[in-house]
Amino acid sequence: MAKEESTVTPWEVSGEIDYDKLVKEFGVSLISETMRKKLEKTHPLLKRGVYFAHRDFDKWLSAHEKGKKVSVITGRGPSEKMQLGHLVPFLVAKSLQETFNCEVFIPISDDEKFYVKEGLSYEKALEYSKDNIIDLIALGFKPGKTFIFEDFVYTDIYKYAARIAKRITYSTSKAVFGLKPENNIGWSFYPAMQAAHILFPQFQRGKHISVVPVGIDQDPFIRLTRDIAEFPEFNFEKPAALHAKFIPSLHGGGKMSSSEGGVIFLSDSPKEVETKIKKYAFSGGRDTIEEHRKLGGNPDVDVSYQYLRMLFEPDDKKLQKIRDDYKSGKLLTSELKEILIEKINVFLAEHQKRRKLAEKQIDKFILKN
Amino acid sequence: MAKEESTVTPWEVSGEIDYDKLVKEFGVSLISETMRKKLEKTHPLLKRGVYFAHRDFDKWLSAHEKGKKVSVITGRGPSEKMQLGHLVPFLVAKSLQETFNCEVFIPISDDEKFYVKEGLSYEKALEYSKDNIIDLIALGFKPGKTFIFEDFVYTDIYKYAARIAKRITYSTSKAVFGLKPENNIGWSFYPAMQAAHILFPQFQRGKHISVVPVGIDQDPFIRLTRDIAEFPEFNFEKPAALHAKFIPSLHGGGKMSSSEGGVIFLSDSPKEVETKIKKYAFSGGRDTIEEHRKLGGNPDVDVSYQYLRMLFEPDDKKLQKIRDDYKSGKLLTSELKEILIEKINVFLAEHQKRRKLAEKQIDKFILKN
Repeated sequence: MAKEESTVTPWEVSGEIDYDKLVKEFGVSLISETMRKKLEKTHPLLKRGVYFAHRDFDKWLSAHEKGKKVSVITGRGPSEKMQLGHLVPFLVAKSLQETFNCEVFIPISDDEKFYVKEGLSYEKALEYSKDNIIDLIALGFKPGKTFIFEDFVYTDIYKYAARIAKRITYSTSKAVFGLKPENNIGWSFYPAMQAAHILFPQFQRGKHISVVPVGIDQDPFIRLTRDIAEFPEFNFEKPAALHAKFIPSLHGGGKMSSSEGGVIFLSDSPKEVETKIKKYAFSGGRDTIEEHRKLGGNPDVDVSYQYLRMLFEPDDKKLQKIRDDYKSGKLLTSELKEILIEKINVFLAEHQKRRKLAEKQIDKFILKN
Repeated sequence: MAKEESTVTPWEVSGEIDYDKLVKEFGVSLISETMRKKLEKTHPLLKRGVYFAHRDFDKWLSAHEKGKKVSVITGRGPSEKMQLGHLVPFLVAKSLQETFNCEVFIPISDDEKFYVKEGLSYEKALEYSKDNIIDLIALGFKPGKTFIFEDFVYTDIYKYAARIAKRITYSTSKAVFGLKPENNIGWSFYPAMQAAHILFPQFQRGKHISVVPVGIDQDPFIRLTRDIAEFPEFNFEKPAALHAKFIPSLHGGGKMSSSEGGVIFLSDSPKEVETKIKKYAFSGGRDTIEEHRKLGGNPDVDVSYQYLRMLFEPDDKKLQKIRDDYKSGKLLTSELKEILIEKINVFLAEHQKRRKLAEKQIDKFILKN
């Protein structure tokens, strides 16, 4: 496996992202209009092109059309309480489950975060896992068709990871992750674990196409795993992938990350949401109301508008009206923010209620050894 | 952890071994006369000094004298059917269990062999494990005080290995094992698994001294694990170690390894044993009977004598008589070999009978997730 020229690794994303360059460099395909039409009824993240590129997702769609088994796999490395940005691949997974009636597999890589974050204790890693799993169940996945497994609980995953580890040299692991000799050996082993996650649906259900919704920065993983899938001792289908652009932080740029502050946690109160959106959500509006009324705002850089587009306004007509009104100057930034605040708070109130129910449903979703 | 100058690593032992140099270089202690006296009732391997050096085994003995908990841990990486040489640490463990009434923990590292041996399949690794476990149970360990756990079955060991992996850098793993970048990441992870095995008695039973009978070539593992034991998140006792010299192969030199041919498998028939000993067991006798009667043989290089001394003649007086008779020329090589053949065949007949019983006892010894 060739060493990548790019500095985009799963643990290192910074600055402005040139997506065209990434698509070309990684050799992935853009989602075509034909494919987009098949996704018209899906979540805004899919139908509006936040997931903009793919590997073999056309094959996944066509396998489903032929009545063949397909599945979705997407995971989480829990190292804090969950925030809106973390939901992105899970909203997509849930939408695929609802649209295509398929199984969803959710690995929780508490080991990854434990290896990578020097200050994260084993006990704390377990605690975050449990908390995050409740959030995921609360999203409304189908019981009996959704399988959540945590590396430090469903330790049988090691049996699969070991078989994969035999096929990954340290050189490869180093290239994919930009590892340094002073990094720990859990970290250098982790690519095997991650590949085991991605191939887990096939280990469990036999050969079929599984799709992984990921940030484009995760593509090196995907390539590695696609190579492994075809080794004769596995003889699996290459997993498909759906690649997302980075969701902007409230400040406007880069990846949504809680370390930058001003992110919205799923546990936030309505007041916290209001304060954060008002204080931090980058505006595409003008400096004064007069100027805004006259010249209009720019929805394409406006974080509140983008959040509505990506996450909170599924109705295309309503979204179009907001866009038109904002561009014409009829809708002020403060009004746009009020729309978003209201939407987020409705979502979070519902989520927080469902979380309480989810705590009682854990056993319906969790895989045990 | 400093890089070792020596080329003795767990996967690389060759040529003549200079034990004094190893003791000095590794910084281990020789077993003292005081300690030896406490081992008078133990297996020949211990009381006759095949286990000749140690780390903190004096502390282990004194902890036991004070009524504190002590335990033994020794494992096996199964990659073939077991042979006599493989029994060495287990005979010692069993003897310590009988003499000091302590618990014995036996990790079966099917993952290690799987990582290291390119041609060994996952399925075959599991098969060897099962076969070897039956041999170990047949040795006569106490049920309820002996715990056998296999990495690919008792996968919960990964939870412990992960906590240790966080504390081992790739640089260290590389130094201890002489890893190369083209080795697989399972192999570079394995030191964490091995340390988890050695610390397992303390993970399971709390802080106490556990002793590991090992070949002196395994000392780099021991040092690594002793360092890890003291990290604040573990706060364990440093494990003690008992270091063995290499058991000679039938040919006389080096480590007993089946790859050199002429080794005795536990499944061998009486006829096979007879043939192998007669054909391969290196003799310290003279070229002709006349010369032997006149000048006597050299028991110190005679493999048959050494096997009696180390493994098959626990009675000191009987052994002394054999030695005297061989040195005086009264006992011929062919007669010495007959004594050994008889002893081995009695042992193997008993072992093969006990193996059948052992198959039914597996559940009494095996740890499951």
